[in-house]
Amino acid sequence: MDFQVLSRLGGERRHYTAGEVIFRSGEPGDELLVVRSGTVAIEVRGTIVERLGESEIFGEMALVEAKPRSATVIAETDCVVVPISEKQFLAMVEYAPTFALAVIRVLAHRLRESNAHRRAA
Amino acid sequence: MDFQVLSRLGGERRHYTAGEVIFRSGEPGDELLVVRSGTVAIEVRGTIVERLGESEIFGEMALVEAKPRSATVIAETDCVVVPISEKQFLAMVEYAPTFALAVIRVLAHRLRESNAHRRAA
Repeated sequence: MDFQVLSRLGGERRHYTAGEVIFRSGEPGDELLVVRSGTVAIEVRGTIVERLGESEIFGEMALVEAKPRSATVIAETDCVVVPISEKQFLAMVEYAPTFALAVIRVLAHRLRESNAHRRAA
Repeated sequence: MDFQVLSRLGGERRHYTAGEVIFRSGEPGDELLVVRSGTVAIEVRGTIVERLGESEIFGEMALVEAKPRSATVIAETDCVVVPISEKQFLAMVEYAPTFALAVIRVLAHRLRESNAHRRAA
């Protein structure tokens, strides 16, 4: 799914320059972010695990789990991101089942990827 | 969330004895499974990454991504699991936003856990 519709929902636009940290692992966070333009890199334990472009989402984990950020996200290029509040997120899940399903798919994809790189015990 | 309501949705009950494999990583799969009784172990790359008991779910990843099973699941004790078809799953997402949100939370939790065990690059 293309989460572009979501970026129209949020009123605020945040501008970052290439190299700037959007948030760090361990920080509190209760927003989901949509990339409006540019590219961001998701970093887990010092490794870039995914790059996201226009209309892709990040930050959903801290929002739904009410836990600190689980990854660091850095602007790879100059970029614009749109924050979506927990309230907006829950409204979307409630009124747009295709949105909920798309978030489930994003998470399933990321989990599959992470599992593939899991350390052996 | 307790997914017990889901186990009442599926008509079928599958019985496994302790040690039996429920499904293996790489196999095709288009059902989500709910633990009705007993305990199952989720194994990723030879390591048990999670144990699930009554009313917990597994198998949602292959269902939503239309990809092979990403983990092996083994009955740890004698257990009963209830299969939920893709059609039933999608109906639940559509009509029960709290269900969709609960699945999102389960995945976020598992992803956080998996990321914590990710190999350094």
